[in-house]
Amino acid sequence: MPNTQAYAAYNAKDHLKPYAFDRRAVGETDVQIDIEYCGVCHSDIHFAHNDWGMTEYPIVPGHEIIGRIKAVGDKVKNYKVGDLVGVGCMVDSCHTCSSCQKDLEQFCEQGMTMTYGSPDKIMGGVTQGGYSTQIVVDESFVLRVSEKLDTKAVAPLLCAGITTYSPLRNWNIGKGDKVGIIGLGGLGHMGVKFAAAMGAEVVMITTSPEKGADAKRLGAHEVLVSTNEEDMAKHANSFDFLLNTVPVAHDINPYMPLLKIDKTMVLVGATPVDLNSMNLIFGRKHIAGSLIGGIKETQEMLDFCAEHNIVSDVEMINMQDINTAFERVMKADVKYRFVIDMQSLKQA
Amino acid sequence: MPNTQAYAAYNAKDHLKPYAFDRRAVGETDVQIDIEYCGVCHSDIHFAHNDWGMTEYPIVPGHEIIGRIKAVGDKVKNYKVGDLVGVGCMVDSCHTCSSCQKDLEQFCEQGMTMTYGSPDKIMGGVTQGGYSTQIVVDESFVLRVSEKLDTKAVAPLLCAGITTYSPLRNWNIGKGDKVGIIGLGGLGHMGVKFAAAMGAEVVMITTSPEKGADAKRLGAHEVLVSTNEEDMAKHANSFDFLLNTVPVAHDINPYMPLLKIDKTMVLVGATPVDLNSMNLIFGRKHIAGSLIGGIKETQEMLDFCAEHNIVSDVEMINMQDINTAFERVMKADVKYRFVIDMQSLKQA
Repeated sequence: MPNTQAYAAYNAKDHLKPYAFDRRAVGETDVQIDIEYCGVCHSDIHFAHNDWGMTEYPIVPGHEIIGRIKAVGDKVKNYKVGDLVGVGCMVDSCHTCSSCQKDLEQFCEQGMTMTYGSPDKIMGGVTQGGYSTQIVVDESFVLRVSEKLDTKAVAPLLCAGITTYSPLRNWNIGKGDKVGIIGLGGLGHMGVKFAAAMGAEVVMITTSPEKGADAKRLGAHEVLVSTNEEDMAKHANSFDFLLNTVPVAHDINPYMPLLKIDKTMVLVGATPVDLNSMNLIFGRKHIAGSLIGGIKETQEMLDFCAEHNIVSDVEMINMQDINTAFERVMKADVKYRFVIDMQSLKQA
Repeated sequence: MPNTQAYAAYNAKDHLKPYAFDRRAVGETDVQIDIEYCGVCHSDIHFAHNDWGMTEYPIVPGHEIIGRIKAVGDKVKNYKVGDLVGVGCMVDSCHTCSSCQKDLEQFCEQGMTMTYGSPDKIMGGVTQGGYSTQIVVDESFVLRVSEKLDTKAVAPLLCAGITTYSPLRNWNIGKGDKVGIIGLGGLGHMGVKFAAAMGAEVVMITTSPEKGADAKRLGAHEVLVSTNEEDMAKHANSFDFLLNTVPVAHDINPYMPLLKIDKTMVLVGATPVDLNSMNLIFGRKHIAGSLIGGIKETQEMLDFCAEHNIVSDVEMINMQDINTAFERVMKADVKYRFVIDMQSLKQA
């Protein structure tokens, strides 16, 4: 597939710039996707800026990909040309280890192949993501997307969606549970929508009182301002689950007294946190982590969204606006996810 | 009960000094215990030195108490004069809250009454502990001790024992589980004994290779030196459970890769720890806390010890040696628990 148009970062100082490269030929079990939309995840910025010290340039970010199938390999079973599909954070895994056997490809013992920035087993170099006109992916890592939903607002479900859906499901959240969603951003706004749709009593926990009205519009039943010690004390020992979506280093100790005995706060942001074990010991409380979700669960999440009419709140941009979008994401100035209309790149 | 002889600390600078005070009269459901032995817990030192800022002087420490019943109240049902009994870290709770109803008195919503240093509901002031000739306790917080075991070595089971037994039981550790005990001290040496008796494969994880032989004598099947990165890597993703008994601030991140997916490290030391959520996110790993155990579970632990012939490894001291013992505990120079022979106080 020569001359796939894309936007790539070339070194840690650059923002994204136009880029052309070859995608791999469509293999027997591959599908070729014409990308229509791609969400802008904070991880894209970390990778473009090499914040995690693992970026190999040039890198094309993007792992919230929606498009239509343009071609299929001879042995593709589940998809046909024209199907509306998605690709999330992974494009391959070993398929054989105990994690893969348990539909937890994100914890593949050989290491999952991330959609961008992982060693590319077929083409060499590193995999290149969705800020691009096309992508070629093995069908086992392709998700089916309902035609019922607003397609462009589905894109962020592939990362922000599954990242928040998976822990809520894994900890069996439902009717009768009081759930706190900490932080209202790209992840948090999806956490509110999912927890409400699952039947839980949802409390948005935020440092920003001005976000309260929007949290309620999204489905929160109550808003708790975490800097208000009196209100925090009123909610002590009352939560069945806390989903902490804060993406930066912070003190998690003030949240722990909110949990009932034996209950869990899940962290989905990869960041150092301050912890005093005293806050776990009193009440036998738990902290856990969660990373996206397996392919089977991601499909389940997309089906749940179609059933409950759930999509992301998005702000559309053209590919040419990406550098401004990056700057606004870094200032948390987006409600709640930028999505690139890839038509703008095709016309460029 | 006038003139109970005891050792008390008077202010944050003092070590313990002789002290005489009145215990409460024996109430209807109380038992009066002639104390024979009392273990020396690191918490005693924290309280004597007011390290946690909550000490009201004078304070008599001691919550690993073994003795014989000297008198019983009119309505005492389960004990008679002469019975060998123990008292641990708690002497009362509300009996009615949801935690108490679930036999988790340590998490009583009204706050448990600690054996020493809690507001004394009957006498006023604060409760006074077991570095003493006598104690009067409601029978519902008294434990039955088997005559089969070495009595003086039973004392530390009341705190160090239940603190390590409870998490192993709560997380259902048994045959087929690979368990790591982190830190070999008063708590760690009990963790090794219990985990081995429960049928687990036990690995002592320590920074001190010289402790290896003793760990194996106590029941560990293997010793892993946590500063050896190569050996740590060999054990990656292999543990079903980690019990972290380290009582001082430390970096817990290096231990997390040892756990299998979805598995837990329990912290029993009340201390700040360094945590990067990345180490929880990859593998959906858990950290939890655990605090002693309820009265029912403490009795179960003592019965388990009688059945499996488990006691602490102790070093006996006289009451008059307590200040030297405190200094040695602070240097971790004891294998593995000091126990005071209270006869020495009675004769003083």
